[in-house]
Amino acid sequence: MPQISHKGEQMPASPIRKLTPFADNAKLQGKKVFHLNIGQPDIETPQGMLDAIHNSTFKVWAYTPSEGTLSYRQKLTEYYNKLGYNITPQNIIVTTGGSEAITIAMMTCLNPGDEVIIPEPFYANYNGFACQSDIVVKPILSYIENGFALPEISEFEKVITNKTKAIIICNPNNPTGYLYSKEEMEALKALCLKYDLFLFSDEAYREFCYDGREFISPMHLDGLDENVLVMDTVSKRYSACGARLGCLITKNEAVIKTGLKFAQARLSAGMLEQIAGEAAVDTPDIYFEAVNKEYTHRRDVLVKALNGMDGVYCPNPGGAFYVVAKFPIDNADKFCQWMLEEFSYNNQTVMMAPATGFYSTPGAGTNEVRMAYVLNSDDLQSAMTCLEEALKVYPGRV
Amino acid sequence: MPQISHKGEQMPASPIRKLTPFADNAKLQGKKVFHLNIGQPDIETPQGMLDAIHNSTFKVWAYTPSEGTLSYRQKLTEYYNKLGYNITPQNIIVTTGGSEAITIAMMTCLNPGDEVIIPEPFYANYNGFACQSDIVVKPILSYIENGFALPEISEFEKVITNKTKAIIICNPNNPTGYLYSKEEMEALKALCLKYDLFLFSDEAYREFCYDGREFISPMHLDGLDENVLVMDTVSKRYSACGARLGCLITKNEAVIKTGLKFAQARLSAGMLEQIAGEAAVDTPDIYFEAVNKEYTHRRDVLVKALNGMDGVYCPNPGGAFYVVAKFPIDNADKFCQWMLEEFSYNNQTVMMAPATGFYSTPGAGTNEVRMAYVLNSDDLQSAMTCLEEALKVYPGRV
Repeated sequence: MPQISHKGEQMPASPIRKLTPFADNAKLQGKKVFHLNIGQPDIETPQGMLDAIHNSTFKVWAYTPSEGTLSYRQKLTEYYNKLGYNITPQNIIVTTGGSEAITIAMMTCLNPGDEVIIPEPFYANYNGFACQSDIVVKPILSYIENGFALPEISEFEKVITNKTKAIIICNPNNPTGYLYSKEEMEALKALCLKYDLFLFSDEAYREFCYDGREFISPMHLDGLDENVLVMDTVSKRYSACGARLGCLITKNEAVIKTGLKFAQARLSAGMLEQIAGEAAVDTPDIYFEAVNKEYTHRRDVLVKALNGMDGVYCPNPGGAFYVVAKFPIDNADKFCQWMLEEFSYNNQTVMMAPATGFYSTPGAGTNEVRMAYVLNSDDLQSAMTCLEEALKVYPGRV
Repeated sequence: MPQISHKGEQMPASPIRKLTPFADNAKLQGKKVFHLNIGQPDIETPQGMLDAIHNSTFKVWAYTPSEGTLSYRQKLTEYYNKLGYNITPQNIIVTTGGSEAITIAMMTCLNPGDEVIIPEPFYANYNGFACQSDIVVKPILSYIENGFALPEISEFEKVITNKTKAIIICNPNNPTGYLYSKEEMEALKALCLKYDLFLFSDEAYREFCYDGREFISPMHLDGLDENVLVMDTVSKRYSACGARLGCLITKNEAVIKTGLKFAQARLSAGMLEQIAGEAAVDTPDIYFEAVNKEYTHRRDVLVKALNGMDGVYCPNPGGAFYVVAKFPIDNADKFCQWMLEEFSYNNQTVMMAPATGFYSTPGAGTNEVRMAYVLNSDDLQSAMTCLEEALKVYPGRV
């Protein structure tokens, strides 16, 4: 029998999805499972997107240009320029989800063996995408004690080598919900210019900023045009995760030119999704206001409930729809699996993502868990009750 | 300014799409351009697929499981088992187009530096996908004189090293239209078993076999279960290229298990496409009969017209909807560009793909051109008239 690749063996399993078989078993046993493990919002997709699908009149479901249709890129330009990004359709490559924007960015900018610095905990799939391209992730720790703020610049400088090519930030952050300040962004800018590094800005959660806080993109910073690549997606903004529609944005012409070669190899992004994506840009502000209000409420419910539990600590995040909380447990992987396999309360349990999978440093995050507050507040409250009871009886409590 | 990757520089441009700017210019000048360069059929997508989209009732456009929805995989199983593949839903990973099936297959089975043997000319994007994963393509020549039949097994054996991990075939073949015989498939089977190689079978054009010829998949061959990976797509079968929906099929459990880790990293394939794909399996036979008849007619028109031109030779292919023809020209890249930039006849011209981009051996295919017969026969006839006139006056005629 031929052997699979070492790369395949090294490829990490998704911390968000790897416990799915245990959740499936729990459901087979008749338990209700509250899914806080995955960032799949329950919010309805804007009606305008769905109408665009239902009213589509094409007869041939055809390839689109590899860089995306001109009309969609024009519409996206309208959206981004309202945010002050000052781009043209030529600065955009439409991608299959934000995931593909990340892989194209990595392949375009980094050679095998090159290094990318990422504050951890970080979106677990960065590890997978780096592994695919034989890129080395150099993590630097951020800490729950200060809400996972950007690590000191000196910590970045400690790991910079002649192989370092890029820094990745996710802002607002998945998994921590941390929203980077203007000062932190300026510090990153100075660092990237000093060491000639690309700055990859994953902005999947741009619309999810709370308490009136301001979102700052590196696209807002002067003098960084050649360094910045924005990786974006419609998944969270319009609750359209299953559309698999994203884009890569950069004013660096060499990156666009080469990124397009990778885009050409896979032919094109989805045609129907680009039609829906065009309609999405016209989503009325009231949709986002309602969503923002709902998520703020959910966050408040979740954070309050968590901090009310004995031995639990959860910072109050400024954005996205995740929290990372510290539990009085021996091992988050064991605990999350135990919740599905062994525990129930009123025949209910909770699926969460062990934070270990969001760290690259071995041993980090072993008592931390990521939760996505993507359920309505009643369900969230029930999930928190369930979790509180679980923490009381978990055999590995410390 | 930070520098892009060497990989990005080495990444080949698409021979199918790289002349697009010249075609765009020709259109701006008011010329009609017949597109024979790209396998985008003009055939209508089955109404059942479009109905499935228009009638969809979901409110949240959500992620699906990384391996694809169970209901779509069950429906696909029905389709494949009618073909005699004898699979279960657990043998399938649903992918974003056939393209992603190829990249997941490569990453799962081959390490950087490993070698894959591909009879050339071959689907150009194999080069791109191999480049992405730092896999080495070892081409072996097939020849227009025998219609691009499978090269002798001894030719494969000449290039086999301890780095050789897989063979890729595309059957029926893109770009040549060649349909591999039972004997050729058996010979490949023996070779793969002898050297313990994976056999990647790209079956995008499975439904397009002409003159009553039989399609043989390696899935039909006994004793090869652990070696075979089928890479498939709905693009051509249902004229749904823009759906970006494909799948990877294998009975090798280690490949499925590891392939799923790559699939998890990019989260999921499109949700709406899987709904449409499920409906597609119920497309009535009459659709395929009409399509097959239409393509047979187009092929006949094209092949007859080409072989009637002075100095042109075109084999009569048994499948797919491409031909590779030999022209009395100095250089196919120059000729195809000249057709768009310099030539017109009745204010019309033809866009074709230089065959050089489908060869990996330098200098091979310089007088060959790939054409896709994806236009109705009147347009095809006009394109052939145009081409005949062009060949009479092309300055680089030999």
